[in-house]
Amino acid sequence: MAGDGADQRALQYEQTLMYGRYTQELGVYAKEEAARLREGGGQRRSRTLDLHEYDKSRCAKCRICTLRCQKFLISRVGEDWIFLILLGLLMAMVSWAVDFCIAICLQAQKWMYGGLDSNVFLQYLAWVTYPVVLITFSAGFTQILAPQAVGSGIPEMKTILRGVVLKEYLTFKTFVAKVIGLTCALGSGMPLGKEGPFVHIASLCAALLSKFMSLFGGIYENESRNIEMLAAACAVGVGCCFAAPIGGVLFSIEVTSTFFAVRNYWRGFFAATFSAFIFRVLAVWNRDEETITALFKTRFRLDFPFDLQELPAFAVIGIASGFGGALFVYLNRLIVQFIRKQKAINRFLMKKRLLYPALVTLLVSTLTFPPGFGQFMAGKLTQKESLVTLLDNRTWAKQGIAEEFDYIGHSAAWKHPQVNVFVTLVLFIVMKFWMSALATTIPVPCGAFMPVFVIGAAFGRLVGESMAAWFPDGIHTDGTIYPIVPGGYAVVGAAALSGAVTHTVSTAVIVFELTGQISHILPVMIAVILANAVAQSLQPSLYDSIIRIKKLPYLPELGWGHHEKYNIRVEDIMIRDVRYITLNCCYRDLHNVLLTGHLKTLALVESVESMILLGSIERAQLQALLSMQLGRTRRLEFIREQAMEEKKRLSMVSNLGSEDGTQRASQEVRFQISTEESSFSPTRTVPQKPLKPALKRPSVVERPTEIPTSPTDDSGIALKGLFCASPDTEGLEDDVDVEDDMTIREIAEWEERQLDEQVNFTNCKIDPAPFQLVERTSLHKTHTIFSLLGLDHAYVTSIGRLIGVVSLKELRKAIEGSVTVKGVKVRPPLASFRDSGTSSSENEATELHKLWDRHKSLSLPREQTPSESDEKSQ
Amino acid sequence: MAGDGADQRALQYEQTLMYGRYTQELGVYAKEEAARLREGGGQRRSRTLDLHEYDKSRCAKCRICTLRCQKFLISRVGEDWIFLILLGLLMAMVSWAVDFCIAICLQAQKWMYGGLDSNVFLQYLAWVTYPVVLITFSAGFTQILAPQAVGSGIPEMKTILRGVVLKEYLTFKTFVAKVIGLTCALGSGMPLGKEGPFVHIASLCAALLSKFMSLFGGIYENESRNIEMLAAACAVGVGCCFAAPIGGVLFSIEVTSTFFAVRNYWRGFFAATFSAFIFRVLAVWNRDEETITALFKTRFRLDFPFDLQELPAFAVIGIASGFGGALFVYLNRLIVQFIRKQKAINRFLMKKRLLYPALVTLLVSTLTFPPGFGQFMAGKLTQKESLVTLLDNRTWAKQGIAEEFDYIGHSAAWKHPQVNVFVTLVLFIVMKFWMSALATTIPVPCGAFMPVFVIGAAFGRLVGESMAAWFPDGIHTDGTIYPIVPGGYAVVGAAALSGAVTHTVSTAVIVFELTGQISHILPVMIAVILANAVAQSLQPSLYDSIIRIKKLPYLPELGWGHHEKYNIRVEDIMIRDVRYITLNCCYRDLHNVLLTGHLKTLALVESVESMILLGSIERAQLQALLSMQLGRTRRLEFIREQAMEEKKRLSMVSNLGSEDGTQRASQEVRFQISTEESSFSPTRTVPQKPLKPALKRPSVVERPTEIPTSPTDDSGIALKGLFCASPDTEGLEDDVDVEDDMTIREIAEWEERQLDEQVNFTNCKIDPAPFQLVERTSLHKTHTIFSLLGLDHAYVTSIGRLIGVVSLKELRKAIEGSVTVKGVKVRPPLASFRDSGTSSSENEATELHKLWDRHKSLSLPREQTPSESDEKSQ
Repeated sequence: MAGDGADQRALQYEQTLMYGRYTQELGVYAKEEAARLREGGGQRRSRTLDLHEYDKSRCAKCRICTLRCQKFLISRVGEDWIFLILLGLLMAMVSWAVDFCIAICLQAQKWMYGGLDSNVFLQYLAWVTYPVVLITFSAGFTQILAPQAVGSGIPEMKTILRGVVLKEYLTFKTFVAKVIGLTCALGSGMPLGKEGPFVHIASLCAALLSKFMSLFGGIYENESRNIEMLAAACAVGVGCCFAAPIGGVLFSIEVTSTFFAVRNYWRGFFAATFSAFIFRVLAVWNRDEETITALFKTRFRLDFPFDLQELPAFAVIGIASGFGGALFVYLNRLIVQFIRKQKAINRFLMKKRLLYPALVTLLVSTLTFPPGFGQFMAGKLTQKESLVTLLDNRTWAKQGIAEEFDYIGHSAAWKHPQVNVFVTLVLFIVMKFWMSALATTIPVPCGAFMPVFVIGAAFGRLVGESMAAWFPDGIHTDGTIYPIVPGGYAVVGAAALSGAVTHTVSTAVIVFELTGQISHILPVMIAVILANAVAQSLQPSLYDSIIRIKKLPYLPELGWGHHEKYNIRVEDIMIRDVRYITLNCCYRDLHNVLLTGHLKTLALVESVESMILLGSIERAQLQALLSMQLGRTRRLEFIREQAMEEKKRLSMVSNLGSEDGTQRASQEVRFQISTEESSFSPTRTVPQKPLKPALKRPSVVERPTEIPTSPTDDSGIALKGLFCASPDTEGLEDDVDVEDDMTIREIAEWEERQLDEQVNFTNCKIDPAPFQLVERTSLHKTHTIFSLLGLDHAYVTSIGRLIGVVSLKELRKAIEGSVTVKGVKVRPPLASFRDSGTSSSENEATELHKLWDRHKSLSLPREQTPSESDEKSQ
Repeated sequence: MAGDGADQRALQYEQTLMYGRYTQELGVYAKEEAARLREGGGQRRSRTLDLHEYDKSRCAKCRICTLRCQKFLISRVGEDWIFLILLGLLMAMVSWAVDFCIAICLQAQKWMYGGLDSNVFLQYLAWVTYPVVLITFSAGFTQILAPQAVGSGIPEMKTILRGVVLKEYLTFKTFVAKVIGLTCALGSGMPLGKEGPFVHIASLCAALLSKFMSLFGGIYENESRNIEMLAAACAVGVGCCFAAPIGGVLFSIEVTSTFFAVRNYWRGFFAATFSAFIFRVLAVWNRDEETITALFKTRFRLDFPFDLQELPAFAVIGIASGFGGALFVYLNRLIVQFIRKQKAINRFLMKKRLLYPALVTLLVSTLTFPPGFGQFMAGKLTQKESLVTLLDNRTWAKQGIAEEFDYIGHSAAWKHPQVNVFVTLVLFIVMKFWMSALATTIPVPCGAFMPVFVIGAAFGRLVGESMAAWFPDGIHTDGTIYPIVPGGYAVVGAAALSGAVTHTVSTAVIVFELTGQISHILPVMIAVILANAVAQSLQPSLYDSIIRIKKLPYLPELGWGHHEKYNIRVEDIMIRDVRYITLNCCYRDLHNVLLTGHLKTLALVESVESMILLGSIERAQLQALLSMQLGRTRRLEFIREQAMEEKKRLSMVSNLGSEDGTQRASQEVRFQISTEESSFSPTRTVPQKPLKPALKRPSVVERPTEIPTSPTDDSGIALKGLFCASPDTEGLEDDVDVEDDMTIREIAEWEERQLDEQVNFTNCKIDPAPFQLVERTSLHKTHTIFSLLGLDHAYVTSIGRLIGVVSLKELRKAIEGSVTVKGVKVRPPLASFRDSGTSSSENEATELHKLWDRHKSLSLPREQTPSESDEKSQ
């Protein structure tokens, strides 16, 4: 996370314009698909017929039947539930396989460590070398194969689900890198988690499965559907990681979505349940379990799980976890920023990318070396073992005499002959806290949920043990003695701390599903809510923190009841100096606008005077228009026309035409030459031509990739049409009978003339309904609309007139506090929209008048000369 | 539900135009509030000073301190969490009190029934009369006080949360009627539920609390905030009903929302947890429980809850529950429709509104009479007791010998000396099924969740007992014998059937929270998902069914993967014949448009030729404009002007002015009269004037309430301004010196002239950015946008030009299948937006040309005569 700082800062992302795109989105896709299916069906049918004729002697009927079945199956493949079942199955198997490999890795380490118990130094070497090698391999492998696989993946998924396309984040390479990198990283025994990466892996799975399924037809190309499936995949990721379907769905919603479509709810539940089911069935099949049960099953008593008077202790756990969670996020960010800031360190680490992971691993594993410091912090337990012991049913510090408790199995690790169990717990919490914060900055695929969960459980256990020591006979006064269950406190602590770090409430549900007991529901809920309240008021969530560190294009949340946001309006944050083009502009204006601005889309207004917003045009479209106008094809046409005129003139002058034969001959030769030249790549001629003479500035030329280079490019149907249907290109092959014999100077002159022509927007793809806001829209509402529709920018209009533009950037600034409420001029209350006292509505009225008057002046000449305008429009 | 059919059909609702309203929504409200707070603060400060001076002798400092504290507290009151805590507390107390009263009512019935065991007839009378009286009272009380309180309330809340204002649904009267009606209805022992009504009651509580809190200031007037709070209240309703905070939040989201804002998630959790906590603490405080536990605690074994091989049985429960749920919804609708269709019955029942409830209650209670038929269906158990026994840990049909099982407590009711326990269960399921479907149609406040839940549990128990009889030693083959737990099957069945009826997955979570055990998570999830899959493909959910019966303005869901929706586009469903007004229209056009159409808003376009959409205007605004133009004030002014001119002419003619003095005197008299007349209600003059002469048709005149009648009206700030700031009204008091002495004929003539004038939109409130779609937007996307933004209608534009309008009605029709895919003309695939092959883009290009040409012809005269237009705009 820190080592590849430069990469992250230079993160390539591409903003998709979801709203603008919807003009041709689903409908077109669906129809394409329908057509393809129909074609496919046709082909298959004809193939059937072929087979029928060709192969009559053999069991033709049987074949036809098979083909029909196949066809039926293929048509069924398009259904959502088949996709979800496949996804669930796949992810359950991946999860199980990863767990299996991790278990083997950890066993191998233990075996090595155990086998060398004669020599402490050799033991240390084995204990330390093993994780260092694994982590270094993981970091190196990920770095080489797909650097996008580094880290948790939840921040990226959050960004992707908002509609932003992150390049290379959903490829097969990333999948391989993430799975293998994660297995090695977790196999090393470092305090890392598998949950975040599993969200990413599930999304990768869904994306790849979509691609694979689209081979069989169906609507797998549909983008809305893909987003829906990615949301379901996130749920599957959490679900199959913890065998927690409900918690998985809720956690993934909380962590990745801003607005959740309830109609997609069932997808997540269906896939996550199936996945969790298969994941646990695999464990039964592998004889690890007798039947399907929870992953970290607890056995707390059911009759009297806790006393009402214990609730303050649970509340304390919640509040302390809130502070702890905020501290964890802060510490994590601090480490990343520290390493980035120290330029000397940074440069050195950049060169030796694998050094940082190795060093961190060395430090952490040295400290956990069981015969060394590790003996005071249960260092020899793996994460899973720690959690199992922490959630244990029994009280460790029974009656205050720590030695008495019945150490069996792994719980023995918590016992130290000299040191109290409380000290062990405190050391464990403190050491694991900074270790986890440090370890999650290693550039390997890893999450922070599980380490935080374990720390929380340890903290809860500490409080629980203290309570048990304080009230040996329980708090309940009348009747039966119900001793305090420290395991219950551990459950509460785990949920609270992980909830605080991730800013989620659903960790409560995950905890119930993980432990298989819901008896502590109220303490858990209270602690989680308190922890969230504290943590959210102090720090962003871990994922939002990473989003900020990585500078991903994401819109921050508004936070808990920030009412001042209601007071900021769009007019306070919008950019008034909008780049626009008018309907009657000439190519020179287009050229200038393209040179000065860097916006991806430009507003199209009717005229400078009226400023009526008609639509928006993508930059690439305008560049294509410009290159069409100045391109070689047009120039050749111009030359040909000139030649024709010349010829006509000549034939007029010398009507008898004595040299006619020779001229035609020479023309024929020229024709041959030029067809050869142009047929080399007839449709590619337009954009491949360097635009240097006209477009001297680098800002346009530097982005040749933005200009679509071939009609088979994926960049859009409209663009294909732009080049395929262009009459110039068609005509090129037929009657090109001129040679490009213009000098550079002539070309420059010709281009100057061309630039003065009016732009013809006929072949240009215009988004006819870009999103519009009004000046008075509050920041709160704007935020809602941007999040809801995944907008990138919105135009601010007033009765049709364009007056400003708001993009994500402005919005982010406004939310993050660059624009404070104090900076906003306070308008008089009740200054309603059309109150004549305010200036802006006066303006509006004036503008309305202008429009009106303009219209009058327009209609007058129209009535007088209707023929003229009719003539023009034809 | 059936008795008040007419009421429901004549349901008054008012569609709010959420999107259009956002022009002045939050910002204005927030500023108003800020101003009010500031004013309030100022007042309070001045009061403090007053006190200081007035009361110096007494402990003034103390008072100031108190006031400051009060001020601080009041400023805190605005915070969300205080509101949520109050709401939770209130609802917990209401829920507990209702439960308490119900328990007393049921005890009373049992006591009566038990005390009369000497005479079966008396016993029967007591058994039957008691519920009949209670239900009749409940129906009558609700009918008289607030008919809106009838039924579950969830359908209405779903509609309200979509942004539709249902009148009278959130008033104090409704609250009282709902609480008392519900208590009586449930106290009667009929198979009715408390969950749906509690959602409504919680929303009522939230609305009333908002109103109450707004007395102390804060932003309680904000509409967005109120919607957020209502969503939280729904969660509280379910949460405090079942002590199930998580399930409550999820259930309320699934049942009421289409798109859920994750940032509001915590509100629901916070309030529901607090409410559930208090609800259970009240039980502990009342010594019902020893500590906080689940409502229907189960004690299934933890080690081996179920075998993997039992899963097919769980799946069967799920699928059967799916069919059962669909059947329940169908049956319920059938009963309502049957009673409505039978006109004779209907008319009779309409007259005697209380007869239907009484008859139904008589029938149901007769059948459950314990010594009668009730002995075969555990008739003497209340709903709660049935559920407790059904979820029992023990097997009833152990080893196939039903008699052997250990009947203690209420379980004895299931035993019949002659009849097998299986027969009892089957009878219970069948009888309760139709009884519940019938009982929920009684016009009392009641839900259907709990009855369905109990039936599901009975069905699950039936399957479980069968399995236990089939495999007496359990299915697990190797090692220990794990007998089958029929109680687990009951849990699964309850979740599956209630999930199928409500189309929710979160019943699974509710079940875990109700029973306090999560060990059966996978069977429950599998069964619930299967039940949902079956039920959703057969019938709408119970709530959607009621929405359709009541014809509430709600947008139906798209359903599971209806891919054909991708193929329908806006252009296929939009209304092309849009009512619009142009910028240069005259009042006569306005008049005609208002007479012909009934839309709430009208589009404002630039001109008939360009059709550029500038904004939309509300009908009321236009009516106000028209009444202004034709109103008395203007006519008086006209008369005055005429008089002035007359005077001028006269003074020109007879310059010496011999009769000047007398004329002035007579004018003064007139002046006195007219001021008297106008000062009576100077600002009300305009609209109170009957519009008869000009607006002869009743369609406009019949709605005088829509025309704002006074500036103190609540109908909108803009409207107030419209009348306050109108210069005519101001001028009226100063120099009204004429008398309304025109004859009817003169008035008609004058109005005819007035109608020919051009409309002046200056003082009209225009929504400058109504929502726009393009023709190619798919139905799927349109549905999403309508649901997301709570739109009522959207204009369809193409490069600024208005070409159509889509309203909720068209969308609903399209989704419900009036427009089939077959009816839609299939366009060639790849017919992209700007493919020149299709006609529509050709049209677009032509239109663009027209615009362009028009613009040219426009800019020419402008350059020639700039002074003219400048003059006009001033």
